[in-house]
Amino acid sequence: MRKIKVYAPGTVANLVCGFDILGLALNEPCDIMEVTLLDEPKVIIHNRDEFNLPTDPEKNVAGVVFLSVMEKIGGNTGFEVTIEKHIKPGSGIGSSAASAAGAAVAANHLLGNIFNTDELIQFAMNGEKLASGVKHADNIAPCILGGVSLIRSIHPLDIISIPSPDLHVTVVHPQIEVRTADARQILRKQVLLKDAIRQWGNIAGLVAGLLKNDLDLIGRSLEDVIIEPVRSILIPGFDEVKASCKEAGALGGGISGSGPSIFMLSKNETTARAVEAAMKEVYERLGIAYYTYVTTVNQKGVSVEEITIVNH
Amino acid sequence: MRKIKVYAPGTVANLVCGFDILGLALNEPCDIMEVTLLDEPKVIIHNRDEFNLPTDPEKNVAGVVFLSVMEKIGGNTGFEVTIEKHIKPGSGIGSSAASAAGAAVAANHLLGNIFNTDELIQFAMNGEKLASGVKHADNIAPCILGGVSLIRSIHPLDIISIPSPDLHVTVVHPQIEVRTADARQILRKQVLLKDAIRQWGNIAGLVAGLLKNDLDLIGRSLEDVIIEPVRSILIPGFDEVKASCKEAGALGGGISGSGPSIFMLSKNETTARAVEAAMKEVYERLGIAYYTYVTTVNQKGVSVEEITIVNH
Repeated sequence: MRKIKVYAPGTVANLVCGFDILGLALNEPCDIMEVTLLDEPKVIIHNRDEFNLPTDPEKNVAGVVFLSVMEKIGGNTGFEVTIEKHIKPGSGIGSSAASAAGAAVAANHLLGNIFNTDELIQFAMNGEKLASGVKHADNIAPCILGGVSLIRSIHPLDIISIPSPDLHVTVVHPQIEVRTADARQILRKQVLLKDAIRQWGNIAGLVAGLLKNDLDLIGRSLEDVIIEPVRSILIPGFDEVKASCKEAGALGGGISGSGPSIFMLSKNETTARAVEAAMKEVYERLGIAYYTYVTTVNQKGVSVEEITIVNH
Repeated sequence: MRKIKVYAPGTVANLVCGFDILGLALNEPCDIMEVTLLDEPKVIIHNRDEFNLPTDPEKNVAGVVFLSVMEKIGGNTGFEVTIEKHIKPGSGIGSSAASAAGAAVAANHLLGNIFNTDELIQFAMNGEKLASGVKHADNIAPCILGGVSLIRSIHPLDIISIPSPDLHVTVVHPQIEVRTADARQILRKQVLLKDAIRQWGNIAGLVAGLLKNDLDLIGRSLEDVIIEPVRSILIPGFDEVKASCKEAGALGGGISGSGPSIFMLSKNETTARAVEAAMKEVYERLGIAYYTYVTTVNQKGVSVEEITIVNH
């Protein structure tokens, strides 16, 4: 019996100006999943964490991904998984995407890598659909591929890997709840053409900055005139955090996914630590509990490790 | 007395999905300007073409650029210029930008290159303002810099050079008039968020395609769901031209600037010629007079040649 251990990283979707089209993988936090292949068509889920997520495969993000793989291949194949989540559900740093992408990559590995990346993303999007009601890939793609992913189109799926400079990332997760559905509901259906033009200038600048390794251009381009002004209302302390992080030297940043986490990019670890201190100061003062992470861009995506099983 | 000859290339602004932020320089057509420095503060303009453009410096695109340079430096300096336009005014391939950029680069060269690129773009934008009422840089920047330019922001000016693959470009200029002001007037002030998202996915894809030298990605990204559906109404034959050019093998393309010219990008000259034939076929059938150009991306922008003056 083969057992594998899969590490599925957290991700920052949107990247400020790239709403629904860009995402970036983090080295921390990272979920761990241990998966074995079963010779009967069922999915068994064990949780090894404090989150009490459902173990019914139909109601579990990883579960539905395993089920969709099984539906595709048919026969007497199943999966048993033990999930140890380190990415808190509802944090806005791709918790459901990590479960979904981890399950897809694990299943594929155990089956002898019969699926390509686009197929894995399709499987994993079933998990995102369960979690948020929408099939989106801006967390899943970077989780699987590492670095920055551009989702040029969902129908048909067109994912482009954008190599990212070795940026340092600071994340603060204030312990408040922002439901993805609410964060989506609050958005206006129409935007001003002039704002859209400014936004696509920034998106083009961000992509050019990443590909040209121009950190200052990345910083200048991290501006969102459409989504952030609306969504940031749901995150207490947002404006203060952003201002004091920039003062501490951050290149820029904003809401991670649909929040409540806020991320900031920095050129080096010293600055990333100063940015963390600035974030802490704000939430200490506001009396809101929080977690912080100081990490780097994950360049490889979900990784797989074989576990040797010794029979006694 | 020093005399210089300046070659100012035509340009394609917008590049389909990059409305107001992207532009690309062409090797053909190209204006020629002969410029000498005067030792009195005046501008003398001669036209060596059929277009009857104004020779009053205040009403001439190159003239106002020379005047703005003179205002900046003061003293007894002036310019005499002979302009030989090959880029037809109103064609949508950057005729006014070539006059403006050519004048700025020529003046700077004669003054010993005292201004940087951003300053040249600022001077040249005065010419665009005279021509279209708006200070825009999406023709001027690529005209001066060559390749593809990204105008991330106008206030403050933030221009990013995007190296372009050696693409082949076919342009057809149907002999109809589309006034820039009309083409701007027709646009909706608001756009659907979902369309804006699709557009910025394409812009990100186009920039990534250019920087990664991925011609197929460039082709897939040349899609405009916001401006083209509205503006193409002003250009008879547009949909047919686009469809038949793609059938002939073009990567993609669309309206050049605000039209009426239509441009198409191709991987090689053979395809670019087949695309030209497809364009001709449509306008022959419609009975509309036209010009075509089959050219390549100009990688160096405005170029300057010294002219030796022999005294007899």
